[in-house]
Amino acid sequence: MMARAPSSFVSDARLWDRLQSLAQFGATPLGGVNRQALSAEDTEAQLALVEWGQALGLEASRDDAGNLFLRLQGTDPDAAPVLSGSHLDSQPTGGRFDGAYGVMAALEAVQAILESNVKPRRAIDVVAWMNEEGSRFAPGMMGSAVFAGDRTLEQTLLVRDAEGLSVGEALAAQQAHLAHVLKRTLGHPVHAYVEAHIEQGPVLEREGYPVGIVTGIQGKHTFQVLVTGEAAHAGTSRRCERKDALLAATAMVQGLAAALHDDADVTRFTVGRFDVLPNAPSVVASQVEFSIDLRHPDSATLRALGAMVDSICQAHRGPCSVQVHRLSAADSLRFPPHMCEQAAAIAKRLQIATRELPSAAGHDARYLHKVTPSAMLFVPCHLGITHNEAESATPSDLAAGTRVLADWLLELAS
Amino acid sequence: MMARAPSSFVSDARLWDRLQSLAQFGATPLGGVNRQALSAEDTEAQLALVEWGQALGLEASRDDAGNLFLRLQGTDPDAAPVLSGSHLDSQPTGGRFDGAYGVMAALEAVQAILESNVKPRRAIDVVAWMNEEGSRFAPGMMGSAVFAGDRTLEQTLLVRDAEGLSVGEALAAQQAHLAHVLKRTLGHPVHAYVEAHIEQGPVLEREGYPVGIVTGIQGKHTFQVLVTGEAAHAGTSRRCERKDALLAATAMVQGLAAALHDDADVTRFTVGRFDVLPNAPSVVASQVEFSIDLRHPDSATLRALGAMVDSICQAHRGPCSVQVHRLSAADSLRFPPHMCEQAAAIAKRLQIATRELPSAAGHDARYLHKVTPSAMLFVPCHLGITHNEAESATPSDLAAGTRVLADWLLELAS
Repeated sequence: MMARAPSSFVSDARLWDRLQSLAQFGATPLGGVNRQALSAEDTEAQLALVEWGQALGLEASRDDAGNLFLRLQGTDPDAAPVLSGSHLDSQPTGGRFDGAYGVMAALEAVQAILESNVKPRRAIDVVAWMNEEGSRFAPGMMGSAVFAGDRTLEQTLLVRDAEGLSVGEALAAQQAHLAHVLKRTLGHPVHAYVEAHIEQGPVLEREGYPVGIVTGIQGKHTFQVLVTGEAAHAGTSRRCERKDALLAATAMVQGLAAALHDDADVTRFTVGRFDVLPNAPSVVASQVEFSIDLRHPDSATLRALGAMVDSICQAHRGPCSVQVHRLSAADSLRFPPHMCEQAAAIAKRLQIATRELPSAAGHDARYLHKVTPSAMLFVPCHLGITHNEAESATPSDLAAGTRVLADWLLELAS
Repeated sequence: MMARAPSSFVSDARLWDRLQSLAQFGATPLGGVNRQALSAEDTEAQLALVEWGQALGLEASRDDAGNLFLRLQGTDPDAAPVLSGSHLDSQPTGGRFDGAYGVMAALEAVQAILESNVKPRRAIDVVAWMNEEGSRFAPGMMGSAVFAGDRTLEQTLLVRDAEGLSVGEALAAQQAHLAHVLKRTLGHPVHAYVEAHIEQGPVLEREGYPVGIVTGIQGKHTFQVLVTGEAAHAGTSRRCERKDALLAATAMVQGLAAALHDDADVTRFTVGRFDVLPNAPSVVASQVEFSIDLRHPDSATLRALGAMVDSICQAHRGPCSVQVHRLSAADSLRFPPHMCEQAAAIAKRLQIATRELPSAAGHDARYLHKVTPSAMLFVPCHLGITHNEAESATPSDLAAGTRVLADWLLELAS
């Protein structure tokens, strides 16, 4: 008699309940979460994850970049592990599923493998990467980028939030609460990485697919623009004498929006952060710092658009000065086709309908892709609403993705 | 033998030293002050003022709006007092002289009157009005507006700062430190009001006048604009589906700047405050709240410009919604000519060269003007730089203005 596959041990209710428990950490009045990287709420979420893992006999460990792992041991201690997870941090007005689902799905999949009584050859690590969102400390995907060697730990520790606190200081403060967790060397060989996530777009829901197989990730270039003017009195200073940083910065935003406009509506251009000094009604602004998030599925187009940013900002600076800093420049990527094919075959066996689709959002899988065969599974996200407290997904879709994940992780670890 | 006039007792050094002592409360690294209304630093400044006054035998008192008075008694207790002063609060990156000079000049003038041994018939009150700047609690000139009956104390106490603290709560907290100061009824008859201030413009310095006689105050309309959009993911949400509050708000600012542009450069249009939610790089902004400060010396023109604001904002709202709230609408005003003539005659007697000029900035004298004959004296402000930590003025100009003030206050009180 054949053993029952792990997928049959996946529990819709258990997965849903853990997601709802996790959503208490940083819960907002509108039903979302504010659980920014390395905050007290993020620490609470990590502590809960460690407890859930230890209850299943998984070994918790944490590296110097603040990435948290829960290991199901394999029969061959020398074989590189299979990794699966996502992130626990959220946007300031984020939803309950973005990131959290990938970690909870991996934990549920590992529990299902345990309950199926099959011993995988390779270890399987559930992982929660540090600071994927990048809203408090920019840019995002810090933990996975450092793990993959794409960014150094040293430079990452120096990044500061709006209050002037560094990643290094915030990590040390968090570490004090996680002293009972094993320390683990940063970076190590990985056999494969799979990340489950809500789609953050409307395609799967609209077309009725419970699971999507992600073909790749759209490229993204990010910038920080610093506009420097001069503080002056709103009543006395003449326009011709002013160096109004806010007037210059708003002209830059409008100039960028016009220059990057494409009729096909494929380019994604967002200024989400805009900080003014001294930010007082009757003082001409002396400084504005704003963010640019620019994405396009075609890497060459994205590079060409990104190359325009500096000159557009300079063209609209007026009497102010402007410095454009490029924070990150990631090309579009394609996951290995054999990984996608393996997922499709498993879903077919489970009679779960899937379609292939690209990811418009960035994910930690972007960096893991640089060091190991990587892949992603999507589940539907209601109306595509995300980075929003109204983000929602159904228990059955979340479980369908987890069923594919459970059998896939075991196959990858065998 | 004629008694020496109070002006001859004015001490350049004493005035300068008090101004420098006061600048320690809220001192910033760049040599300015951050002493916002009802802050701990503002309280320290008030305590210092009370001590200086008490050392001269002046009676300190405070009304329910947080206005602080130091009284030199007159020989006729039934005569309405003469008031002179300005404010102790500053912008977040303010200078050492804006407001502080008017209070210290009045104190120095009263000390000079005391030392001249002439007893005025009317009491003379040195006054520090609560929250002139309006950067923490908007709008400004709160204390003088409430004193003059232009705004109710009740509505003023409800105004909240960015942290949600109300004026009422902040006043109560400050009051705990000033419990040793007499309570005084809010509002009372005033015989005349004179406010000394730095010019906050370049005219007096450029033309070499140590003192300016202010003919009136330019009108000012202020607005708060609330733009509401919808949070969305910067990578996945299509432009056609977005309600980007930041894109709409920057279009409004640019639209306003274009529509309010005058070749003569007389209109003053400033957006100094601009707050974004959730203010994260990879989230389309769900809300922007920004300020508008609009001024013009001609009241009819100002009213016409102010009437355009709502429709310009509506025209640029795109898929977002916008609400324009008018916070204040003050016409331009002209001080009584007989007050200006009196000042000119005193300055002439003292051989201090003066010129008449209007005030482009708003001052507490705007509200006192509604209830008593009011006037202002200006002294030069280096390069007209103000609302800026680099604000500066010379000891001799500051003293020249105080000499005119001292003799004038005595004349008004006789």
